Amino acid sequence: MATRKSPPKSSVLLVGAGGTLGRAVQKELATRHRVIAASRKGKHKVDITDSASIRRLFEQLGKVDAIACAAGHVHFGALADMTEALFAVGLRDKLMGQVNLAMIGRDWLNDGGSITLITGILAEQPIRYGTSASMVNGALEAFVRAAAIELPRGIRINAVSPNVFAESMPGYAPFFRGFEAIPVARAALAYSRSIEGAQTGQIYRVY
Amino acid sequence: MATRKSPPKSSVLLVGAGGTLGRAVQKELATRHRVIAASRKGKHKVDITDSASIRRLFEQLGKVDAIACAAGHVHFGALADMTEALFAVGLRDKLMGQVNLAMIGRDWLNDGGSITLITGILAEQPIRYGTSASMVNGALEAFVRAAAIELPRGIRINAVSPNVFAESMPGYAPFFRGFEAIPVARAALAYSRSIEGAQTGQIYRVY
Repeated sequence: MATRKSPPKSSVLLVGAGGTLGRAVQKELATRHRVIAASRKGKHKVDITDSASIRRLFEQLGKVDAIACAAGHVHFGALADMTEALFAVGLRDKLMGQVNLAMIGRDWLNDGGSITLITGILAEQPIRYGTSASMVNGALEAFVRAAAIELPRGIRINAVSPNVFAESMPGYAPFFRGFEAIPVARAALAYSRSIEGAQTGQIYRVY
Repeated sequence: MATRKSPPKSSVLLVGAGGTLGRAVQKELATRHRVIAASRKGKHKVDITDSASIRRLFEQLGKVDAIACAAGHVHFGALADMTEALFAVGLRDKLMGQVNLAMIGRDWLNDGGSITLITGILAEQPIRYGTSASMVNGALEAFVRAAAIELPRGIRINAVSPNVFAESMPGYAPFFRGFEAIPVARAALAYSRSIEGAQTGQIYRVY
């Protein structure tokens, strides 16, 4: 086989770059891609709960080859204590924040670009205090399956659905007893699979 | 086997009783239950998008043995035309309308009572123009699985996820080409399974 030139580095916008997952995704992607790290603070600021903030970010950056999200907040609380306002936190942040990132970002993706969102194991396997997280993750997974069949210009969309991270267990262990925590690097690997693979509408479960 | 007395009729609040599905559910349940038919119009008025309206309904009715919902609206539209506001329609109506019905209704259910919500096949099998419906249905199914493990006093919660109804095909056929439409009576039957069965956290798929 003749030697082949490496493809030129692609540009990946990584939202939520400052978190446990975001740092791992950045490390995973940095050797092969030009990663543009965005978060609530720092050089490239974005608040995904605010569509105007997402639009401003893309106006600064211009076109990219991939959008990867490692951000999204939900309220954890006992079902008995959940209110309409507490459910709205997750709907506005982790759900519609990522949906808006995908919907706005689509117009800033080069042909054949990709969108990778973050869901989580609670979509399938509930825990106490996790009703809102389950709801939001279930919504995102179904959104990804549906959006995949309507995106234009060969743009793909997938989600990564990880188990709880070993790195997060110091704080989360009481809520995830019995779950097989995974190294966050395994979840980060799934972002490469989404970005550099060819599939769309997939939920990469890293359990 | 000795003859047994039939159990006393249980009271079932049926929300969305006026629609294609609601009428079929009422017919399915009426022979064995006291069905309280609620909808936007009529004797027992309720608008599930308004928590105050749900609360007023229960204050009028008092305790019930089961809550069954056959109501919930989402916006159908091409992904390219979907906006934050159009996604919000389904989140406010079919999703949070039913979640609020479950959360408020829980306190008005007798011990061992049940809640049955409506989702739909688009949670798993997307169609063009169905992104919002998929998202909302996926959210509801994950919510049901999660809420089931935290509900008190033996209260159960399930969802019915039907295929497109044969009765709705005159209007919906162009969007559901190739789907095996089901008689709405089959979906109604699943409500009996939820209400009179003993399972919780189930999605009864009627495909």
